[in-house]
This record gives sequence, structure tokens and C-alpha cells, in this order.
Amino acid sequence: MTTHLAREISEQPERLTAFLSSQREAVAQIAAAIREYNPASVMIAARGTSDNAARYAQYIMGAHLRMPVGLSAPSLHTIYGTPPKLTNHLVIGISQSGQARDVNAVLADANRDGALTVAITNYPDSPMAKTAQHHIWLNVGQEVSIAATKTYTAQLAAVALLTASLADDPALANALSGVPDIVRQTLTYSESIEGWAPRYRYMTQFASIGRGFNYATAFEIGLKVKELTSVIGEGYSEADFRHGPIATISSGFPVILVAPAGKVSPQLKDLIVKLQEKRAELLIVGNEGDVLSQATNALRIPTVDEWLSPIAAVVPGQLFAMHQAMVRGLPVDKPEGLQKVTITE
Amino acid sequence: MTTHLAREISEQPERLTAFLSSQREAVAQIAAAIREYNPASVMIAARGTSDNAARYAQYIMGAHLRMPVGLSAPSLHTIYGTPPKLTNHLVIGISQSGQARDVNAVLADANRDGALTVAITNYPDSPMAKTAQHHIWLNVGQEVSIAATKTYTAQLAAVALLTASLADDPALANALSGVPDIVRQTLTYSESIEGWAPRYRYMTQFASIGRGFNYATAFEIGLKVKELTSVIGEGYSEADFRHGPIATISSGFPVILVAPAGKVSPQLKDLIVKLQEKRAELLIVGNEGDVLSQATNALRIPTVDEWLSPIAAVVPGQLFAMHQAMVRGLPVDKPEGLQKVTITE
Repeated sequence: MTTHLAREISEQPERLTAFLSSQREAVAQIAAAIREYNPASVMIAARGTSDNAARYAQYIMGAHLRMPVGLSAPSLHTIYGTPPKLTNHLVIGISQSGQARDVNAVLADANRDGALTVAITNYPDSPMAKTAQHHIWLNVGQEVSIAATKTYTAQLAAVALLTASLADDPALANALSGVPDIVRQTLTYSESIEGWAPRYRYMTQFASIGRGFNYATAFEIGLKVKELTSVIGEGYSEADFRHGPIATISSGFPVILVAPAGKVSPQLKDLIVKLQEKRAELLIVGNEGDVLSQATNALRIPTVDEWLSPIAAVVPGQLFAMHQAMVRGLPVDKPEGLQKVTITE
Repeated sequence: MTTHLAREISEQPERLTAFLSSQREAVAQIAAAIREYNPASVMIAARGTSDNAARYAQYIMGAHLRMPVGLSAPSLHTIYGTPPKLTNHLVIGISQSGQARDVNAVLADANRDGALTVAITNYPDSPMAKTAQHHIWLNVGQEVSIAATKTYTAQLAAVALLTASLADDPALANALSGVPDIVRQTLTYSESIEGWAPRYRYMTQFASIGRGFNYATAFEIGLKVKELTSVIGEGYSEADFRHGPIATISSGFPVILVAPAGKVSPQLKDLIVKLQEKRAELLIVGNEGDVLSQATNALRIPTVDEWLSPIAAVVPGQLFAMHQAMVRGLPVDKPEGLQKVTITE
């Protein structure tokens, strides 16, 4: 008997294909509306896994569109009742269910301020899809497992598609259309994870580190491991990690490093040396032999443009988290104490 | 023999007084320049402890000024070489030393885009103080201990003073001038921490949770404990915590809750009930009897306006982290593997 989680992870390539082919035209129209609106700044509201998609958006919209992107503080809208004025802003809400009440409040306040609002959800009939002026539909089918996987990669693809449309650069759009195959290849490479997962049966803590485009990936892999195994750990930016938390690393400490080839490679390679001096145990997500050879266990992904690598790089992390739960005899579809839809004010 | 850290924590009341009295006029002039510039949005760049001061700024500038505030992704400026266009933005860089190269790059790029730039540092001759068009000087004297304490509370005071000046509301300015006395009273209340700190001698992990204005405090207390004791743990927003990480809490798990009276109290009181159901061990920073009585150990602060409570609420956390290091025989002024000034690109 397979689990919903295993199925949802494995169906990501075809779900990404379906999303990209069905939503390209709708997203092109949203991009045209954004170009016409010409926002001074961008604010994104999200929680949990969706917040990691927001982190990804901050980097790729900054890098490809030169747009300043900030992540919203929804409490200002819901609890304090003193929302920031979002005039001249593009405001994006991201939520798997489209039911996040606090994210919806940000979109509603933004509408009142005359902002341009876009929701990214898996449900066209959801409150957020209706509140926002525009909606990008993830179109991945229902996600049954509590731990979000296919909705996360589709959220990243939605952000990437919007960015490619806004950049109006065929090279970006072409690269994006190759992503489903890259994720398919990643799943094949990841078959080995089941074999070595038992080594971490008694792991009681971990760190997960990335930088730049894959800062989001480090956070998301960290969140999956926490949700599915209850092991405590933290996602870090490589830079923030050096400002203090590196003090927590002792001999044998397991560190997941998200280090595919790209502009941040020199920083991550330097960190690998530092972590080896501390005799940390390295699990490395990457696609270069000289990097992967430094790992106790390698989580290989194919060669891929750095800006799209997060859509592939999270996949071995999803599988590592799932196999850890299985090795520990934990329920993978319904981790104790979690709900699929968490409503926070 | 006392330590630099103990001295720097204890001198915070007089350092805050010196900062507020010496910089009020300079900050009023910067506020006037910002009002004239009339920014569409605000972007703040910072790393480590200073990034927690940036989180505080996002909330209080949002709540009192209705300004949308985002936190910058410095990698876009330094590594990717594709900085976002910061035209019409107020851009604030925060750094104890003023030497953070990546934060400085954000300020330099912002200047080129015609943004209004402000640096908040402890050194008027530092690179950041010279790059930014305006400088707010923390004026707290040299901080010798590697773990930042008095520079952090002064950074919060700088953000609060700028916010009060921009709001042009005498009630806010008056409340702020009472903060040094509140921190002095907090230090008195905190004397008991040394007595119960040994209970946590063998604590191997923890979580630190806050919401709204004190989201920053939860992160900063978490960072202090990690830096000084190498115990792994994480700071969370109460809302993000419910979206997954709550799964990691088991019986006896130590949770530091930052819960002074304020608009987020209902959310935190509800979380206390949830954590008690999971039999977590609660350390609560607060100022209400019914909240503190739920704690195994209470970290009491005086009654204080919620928006200023972070300046006091971090203090018992600083002392808890310091006493943990002492109980464990660890060097408090120079934790292994850390430098005072961390330069990241």
C-alpha cells in the first residue's frame, strides 16, 4: 500500500506539466496587467510552506525583474488593525487552500488601497481566489497528505511563470518548460535515498542551509523534516548562519546543504570547508561532482539553471523527510498534531 | 571578576538614556527628510541580531506609520549583481559595526537609484555611516562581548525614536522616554534567573515563540541562546509555528514564550493551552499574573506599552542565555567559533 505523500511526490512532473500548459495564457494576461499597473514595490503574504514560495519569489523577481519584494506581516492587518498602505504595490497572496484568513485580509486591505492583487492557490472557488483581482490556479488536483509537496513545487512554478512572462524573455520561458523533465530525472536519482535513510533513525536535530534562490529550499526541506519526523532543526541562509548559529555545530552534527551549481556556489563551497573542520555530517543537494563528493550522502539533481533549481532541489528533501518518517514508524500522511488547513488570524 | 557580557547587559538602561537624549534632534531631522521624500515603500537590510531589529521595524513602522516595510535580500546586490530598483524607497541599513559589506552594497545601490538611505550603526566613521545619506548613531560605547546585547536594545530604541518622530505624536515620544527605567526594573526582576538556570543545564533543544511586535524578540532570544550555549533551537512567529513546527513539541520540551500584554495576547494564551496539552515546559516572558502563573519559570518584565515591550522583553532572555553559558562552563564573552564582526558578501 502506498501513501498519499509518496504518490503526491511522485506525480510532481506531470502536475507541473499540466500547470504550465494550462495556465500560461492566464498568467500572460496577469503579467500584462502588472506591466500596465507598473508597481513601485511588491509585497507577498503567505504562511508555512507557502511562505517559502514567497521567499523564492523575492529572489527571482528581484534578479530577473529588478522588482523590490518584501514579505508581509499579516498581523498588522488582522490583529493590530493598522495595515500598511499598499498604494502602488503589487500584492501577492500565496496559499494552497486559498483559505488563509490572515493572507486574505492582506489582499482585501490592498484592494482598498488601490493595489494590484494576485492570489496563487489550488482552488479557484476559494476565498482568496475571489478576493484578489487576479488568480493563478495551481491545477495540481487535491493534495491529501498534510505535508505540502506538489502544491509547493507548483507554487514555485507559478512564481517562475509569472516572472518569465513579466520579463518577456523567451529564454526564461523555454528553460521553465524543461522543468517537469528535470523533476522526473530528480525522482530517478532519489531512489537511493531509501537505502541510506536508516542511518538517520536516531538523528535528534539538524540544520538545513541554502543561499540566494535556494534559501527557500533550505527552509522548505527543514520544514518537511520537522513536520514529518518531529525532529527539531532549522533552515538558514548561509550568510545568517555564519552570524551566530554556526556555533551550534559540533562533530557529527547533520547538516543538509542545498548547493546546486550557481552564483552562490563559492560561498557554499567555503561553508563546506568550515563545516568539515567542525566534522559536521553533510547531506548535500547538488549537481556538481566536486561538491557532492564532500557529502556523506549526496542528494543529486540534474544540471539546471540556478533560478529554476529550487523546483528540483526540494524533491530529494521531500523524499528524505518521508523516508525518515517511515524508518521511524511515523504516519506520513497525517503527522500527529497537524491539520491540512491551518487558519491563523 | 565580571564579564564584558554581564556588564554590557547591566549598563543597558544608562546607554538607552544616553542614546535617546543625544540623538533626539538628529533623528528629528532625518524624520523631516523622510517626510519630504515621502517614500512609496521601505526596505531594510541587516544580518544576524540586526536583522531582528529590522523585524521590529517592520511591525512598528507598519502599525504607527502605515508604511509597508520589507526586509532586503542582500545577495541580489552582492552575488547575483541584479539589485532590485529602489527608486521611491526609504532604505535603512542596520549593523552594529557598520562594516557589513552586503548591507553596505544595498545602501550604495539604493543611493544610485535615488532612494533615501539611512544607516543605524554604533560607529559614525564606519563604511555604512558614510555610504548612507543619513546616520543614526547608537552611541552605546564599544561592545566587547561577541554576543550583541546593548547594541540590539539601542537599535530597537533607534527604530522606535525614528517611528515616534515620523508619527509626530508626543504620546509615543513620551512613552519611549520611559523605556530606560523599564529596562532598569526588568534587570531587578531578572535577578532570580541565576537561581533557576541550572535546571536547564542538560537542555539540548528549545523553541522560542512570539508574535507581532515581539516576533523579533523571540528570534533574538533564540539567537542569544544558540550563540552562547550552542544549544539548537529556533525562533518562531506564533502563527508560523502552528503551520508545522508545533509537531516537534513533545512532553518536557522547553519553550520560551514572549507574551507581554498586548493585542496578540489572545493568540499567545491559546497557544499556552495547546502547549500545556503537549506537556511542554514553559518559560514565559510577560507582565500579567495569569500568564506568568502558567510558566515553570517566569521571566517578568514591568507593565509597558506593547510596541515598546520588545526593548524590555529581550533582557531576561539575554540573561537566561548568559546564565546557561555560565552553568555549562562556557566562555560568555567569546563563544567558540564566532567573531564580533562577521563580514558576508
